[in-house]
Order: sequence, then structure tokens, then C-alpha cells
Amino acid sequence: MAHSLRADAVWASLSRLRDTAPLVHNITNAVVTNSTANILLALGASPVMTDSTEEVEEMVAAASALVINLGTINGDSAAAMRLAAAKAQETGLPWLLDPVAVGVLGYRTRVAGELLWHRPTAIRGNASEIMSLAGTAGGKGRGVDSTAGSRDALAGARSLAEATGAVVAITGAVDLITDGERIVECHNGDPMMTRVTGTGCAVSAIAGAFLAIEPDPLTAVAHALAVFGIAGEIAAEGCNGPGSFQLRLLDLLFDLDGQRIADRVRLR
Amino acid sequence: MAHSLRADAVWASLSRLRDTAPLVHNITNAVVTNSTANILLALGASPVMTDSTEEVEEMVAAASALVINLGTINGDSAAAMRLAAAKAQETGLPWLLDPVAVGVLGYRTRVAGELLWHRPTAIRGNASEIMSLAGTAGGKGRGVDSTAGSRDALAGARSLAEATGAVVAITGAVDLITDGERIVECHNGDPMMTRVTGTGCAVSAIAGAFLAIEPDPLTAVAHALAVFGIAGEIAAEGCNGPGSFQLRLLDLLFDLDGQRIADRVRLR
Amino acid sequence: MAHSLRADAVWASLSRLRDTAPLVHNITNAVVTNSTANILLALGASPVMTDSTEEVEEMVAAASALVINLGTINGDSAAAMRLAAAKAQETGLPWLLDPVAVGVLGYRTRVAGELLWHRPTAIRGNASEIMSLAGTAGGKGRGVDSTAGSRDALAGARSLAEATGAVVAITGAVDLITDGERIVECHNGDPMMTRVTGTGCAVSAIAGAFLAIEPDPLTAVAHALAVFGIAGEIAAEGCNGPGSFQLRLLDLLFDLDGQRIADRVRLR
Repeated sequence: MAHSLRADAVWASLSRLRDTAPLVHNITNAVVTNSTANILLALGASPVMTDSTEEVEEMVAAASALVINLGTINGDSAAAMRLAAAKAQETGLPWLLDPVAVGVLGYRTRVAGELLWHRPTAIRGNASEIMSLAGTAGGKGRGVDSTAGSRDALAGARSLAEATGAVVAITGAVDLITDGERIVECHNGDPMMTRVTGTGCAVSAIAGAFLAIEPDPLTAVAHALAVFGIAGEIAAEGCNGPGSFQLRLLDLLFDLDGQRIADRVRLR
Repeated sequence: MAHSLRADAVWASLSRLRDTAPLVHNITNAVVTNSTANILLALGASPVMTDSTEEVEEMVAAASALVINLGTINGDSAAAMRLAAAKAQETGLPWLLDPVAVGVLGYRTRVAGELLWHRPTAIRGNASEIMSLAGTAGGKGRGVDSTAGSRDALAGARSLAEATGAVVAITGAVDLITDGERIVECHNGDPMMTRVTGTGCAVSAIAGAFLAIEPDPLTAVAHALAVFGIAGEIAAEGCNGPGSFQLRLLDLLFDLDGQRIADRVRLR
Repeated sequence: MAHSLRADAVWASLSRLRDTAPLVHNITNAVVTNSTANILLALGASPVMTDSTEEVEEMVAAASALVINLGTINGDSAAAMRLAAAKAQETGLPWLLDPVAVGVLGYRTRVAGELLWHRPTAIRGNASEIMSLAGTAGGKGRGVDSTAGSRDALAGARSLAEATGAVVAITGAVDLITDGERIVECHNGDPMMTRVTGTGCAVSAIAGAFLAIEPDPLTAVAHALAVFGIAGEIAAEGCNGPGSFQLRLLDLLFDLDGQRIADRVRLR
């Protein structure tokens, strides 16, 4: 069943995010630490990127949301992720899991399975990652990219949502978000977003920021995907390639207003 | 007591830096390794980012300055920091400590205290970080951001300078630099600098580069803050947001000349 | 003996690369993980940056080429590099070694020597790095920069190629590529490329991508150097400094066409 969400609700969420500047704790990969922090700052959130076993529990206790991204996981960071996820579960902090390349590499696939026991509030991945995490067939991606379309993963996403209690978002040419019952589609975005590293990681971080200020996780994730997709499509229209696209994306996240959201939002 | 420094002295320092391209060894955090290296290259310095226990002592021995930044510290990098700081102390190499988020997280607060025993030449932080390091009240920041203004931290900065022998810089809307006796104020800069990650880390690295070519540490740090603040305010004037700001900042650091320094420098 | 390579062959290689989007596995340094991934994406390759001992062998088995870069090596990453190089040798995967700062720091110089036993397909470094790896005199660089010119390292490059079976590229104001017998010169490029961190690392990654789609390693590396040099010199012509240079470089790698290659290629 498609779910209707209005542009003014997206704008209200973004305004609340900018007003409160939630502290978003990211345990993420070496490729996107800088770009993720900059995207959160441009959006109006306050990023923290601490990722050591010595510090993550204390940081989780002070944060408004936690995002765990498996991109360049190793034994040390996996240990920090386990501590952070357990602390978030214990304190009721909203947290999001980004299962980068799960299904491609055995080690991270096992760690992702363990992290699910700490009940993420939301999970955001491409179709291959979500299918792999759901244990459905066809989940093997290619490197960090999906080999399947979003709709192929919808059944898996629903069963994953039911099994874990998380809102599950499959991103791709079309984005699908489900809590197991409701389904929201987001049609914003542009193919240029695939020519820059870390756009998937960025939208996970943005979804984490919206989880901090929006009580309904399905709404939070849908608003995050719409905001990032709208900024991405405007950025792509005026760019000459992935260099100018990145610059414009940061400028637009900083500058996005209610009018442009109203003109462009495509949530169903 | 305010201290007068002239624009031609800033320009002479920057010219000397460009002529000698000092090798600046940075042990820094995962968020800003790339941006710090690019900022030092744009300025005219030669950055090295080696951070392993296997290599830092050998690198310190070949460098012209060392910068230690606690941003994403863990047990391994803390061990490398201790070795590097000890080697810098032993060889008389100028070195700068950037106590990112000290006061917020217990582990790094303890490591920062240990590193002070190796007598940094300079310390650069925001008001909360300096107050925490000085052991004065009110030092608890929010994530990597300060909850206090620069002037709130001045008494702490002076006592920290006296206790350690370091020049201490508090950066914020106004920057204050003290050796415990003299005080320099720097009024250059722009609020857009807070919407890009790592500008504090960048100015610490630039201060490290100036320490390599300027014998008086108070002068070196003041000149670094002025140069970075001037580039930042010109970059902010012509930008559309944090993406174009970052691009312009690198172009301006590369291109900054004596005339623009003379027109804008606000050191007292 | 100079070797003639035509512009249409360079363009054919680049077109094949874009059509096949080879999966290029990079074990690289903390400074350039983001910029390397973005450069490979702009070019049309598919980057993966996994660098843990838990995962590198499985990733190598799925990749089309491997690039190992010693930039910020430590004990953990050295272990991952050994596993990955051994797996590449075992499976016949083309792989490239970038010996950053070898000759300056003892630890990485020893690790580089061990990695040579796994028979890299290609080695790309500056003159000081190649001279040090070849064991010839004068190989000591300054930080990550060379203190010698490309031609000073040619004898060392030839003996290194003969001893290891690798194609060896010395990059600098002029690039020289040799398999021990043939020598190709590449005169493309611009000095602005030295004012941005990681351009050497980027061209190594690009050479890795060309090794995945071009059976002759000498041709692959020469084409990679020409493509990157051409993009670099066009980017430099229209830039205001290293910030706008980086943006333009990504846009041009994405956009480079046969005409601009034909107009500019300077391979001999």
C-alpha cells in the first residue's frame, strides 16, 4: 500500500533538523569519513566520527543518533561497532545500519548478522545488500554495487523489517522504504550520484540525522531520501561531471528551501 | 596587553614558508587526512601523514615540524603519538598539539594529559578544549564543538601556557593567542568556516608549518591564524555554500598575496 | 629505443575500460582513499577499497586488478598487503605496486622488498622511490617527494624490471615506462598536479584499471599515464588554483573524448 507524504512535512523535518543540529555519531569507512562529515555539516547536523573501542560507548551516550557503516570494516572497527550498537540498544538511541557489500564478503556478512541482534532502528542498503541480509536469493552484489533492482529486493526488505523491527530502505534508481507493512517509494535522485563515491553512505548518514529529530522512523528515512535525492537532481542538472556535481551537492544541501522541495518531491 | 603585528611581517612569513616548503609531519584524524594534506600543499608546505608506530620516529627525525591531532584517536594511534612527541622533544623539533574533543571523551583527555609532558611548542583548540586541558571549569564541549566563547577560556589558556611553556591559541569567532604573558587577538575569519569539517584541524596544520619557519612561536601561530582567516573570509564572500567555499579556500591559500594580506589582516 | 603508440590506441583502451567498468581493488593510504575512489569512478572503473586481513583475499579473488600503495602503511595493513599480493600472484591477477616514500622510511622499504617476491605486474613511483627499490644510489627522497629527475632513475628502472618481470614507470616532469627492454616516454601533465595530494596515487590506481583491460602491461601503463596527464593539463589550463584544479580533473576524466586525446597525446 503506497503511503502519501507531503512536501511540507519534508520541509518541516529539514527545518527542525537545522534548528536543533543533532549530534550524529558515525562509525564509518575510510573512504567517506570526510565526505560524510561535510554532508552532515552542510545539511545542518553536527557530525562526530569517533570509531575506537576506547571511545564509542561514551560518544553514543552523548549522541542523538548513531550510524554504523561496514564499508572498510576490520577486526578493530567491528569490535567498536558491536560496543556502539549494544550501547544504542541499551539507551534507546535511534541507530541505522548500512550493510555495505554484505553478501560479497563473508566476514562483514557475519558481523552484520551479529549487529542485527542489537535491533537497528533502520537499515539502508542497495538491493543486493538487502537481499543478502534478508537471506533471500540473488543477494550477491559486485563490489559495493548491486546486481539487482530495488523491486527485486522488496519481499526480502519486508521480511527483514518484520524479523528485526527495523525500517528497511532499498536505494537505487527508485528507492523503497518499508516497515514491513507500509511502503513508501521515493523517485528523487539522478544517475550522476553513482559516479561519486559514498553517496549511499551519505544518504545513510542523513537518514541517521533525520532519525534524531523525527519520531516515526519510516517518515524519517523517507524524508532523508527525498531531501538527498532532490539536492542530487538539482546538482546534476547544472554540473559538468562528478567534480562539479560534488561541489554543487554540498552547496544545495546547505541552501535547500521549502519551495524547491515542494516543486520536486516525489514520495508516494 | 594587546600586541601589535604588522601585515608585512605576515607576508614575510608566508613568503619564507613558500620558499622553503617545510616538511610538516601530521599525525591526524581519519576525517581530515586528505583535506589537511591539500591545504598544506596549497599553502606551499610539504605534508607527510605517516602515523604508525613503525615509522613515526624516523619521520619526525626528518621533518621540520610535527602536528598531533587527537580527532579519531585509538590505542594504536595514541602509541604513535607518544613516540612522535617524545622524539620531537628529544630533538628539539617544534610541535603542535590539537586536543580535538578533549573534555568530551575520557580516553583522549587522558592521552592529551600525557602528551603535555613532552612539552608542545604550541597548543591550538576551541574554548571548551583549552578549558578542559587547563583543568578550568566549563570545559565540556558538545562533540567536536565548543560550548563556550574564546574569552571564557583566556584565563585557562594563560595558566596552561605557564604550566607547559607552550603558546596556546583559542580559536572561535575571535582567536586569542598567548604565551602566558603576551596576548594576540586575531579577528580574521568567517562563520562559513564552521560549515566545513576540519577547518580547526587545518589551521593547526598551518600553524605547524609556520612554526617550522618562524622562530618565535607566538608570532608563528598568530601569522598562521591570520593567513587562514583571511583566505577563509575571501573564500566565503564569493561562495554559494560549503562546497564552493572549500574549492575557493584551496585556490586562495595557493594564491594569497601581500596586498590582500595588507588589506585585511586584523591582528592586535 | 623509443616506442611509438598512437592516440587511437589510447582512446580504444579508455573506451574498453568504460564499457567493462573493471573492479579495481585498492589497498591504499588514509590520505587518498576518497580521492582515489572518485578518480576511478570518474574514469569509468569500479573501485573497492577493502584493506583488512579478514577480507582482502576474498576481494582479490573477485577483482579484475589490484593496486597496493604503501602511503600510510602500518603493521596491520602490511599484513593485508602480503595476503593480497600472494593471492594475486596465485590467481594470476594483474597487480601494481606503488612504493610511496620507499627509501625514506626503513619499515616500508623492507615491506616493499617482500612484496616484490609476489611479482607485481607493474611498479609506479617517482625517481627516488624507483632508485631506492632498485637498490641504486641516490634513492633517498624527501618525504613523499623525489629529489631526483626521471632520467636519473632509468638505469635502476630497467634493472628492476629485469629482476622482477614488472613493467616499471617513473613519473615526474617526464614519465618513463620500461619493461627492461622497451622504453616509452610520456610528456603529458602539468606542474599543478604536484600541488594536490595523491596525484601519484591516482595515476597508480588508473594504471591498475588499465591493466585489467589491456593485456600488454607496458601499453596499459603508458595509456594510463597519457590519459591522466591529458586530463591534468586541460584541468590546469582553466583553473585558479588546486581547488578548482581538483574539480576540473574529475570532470575531465569523466568527459575525456577521442578528439582531445588525439590533440594532446605525447607518448614516444
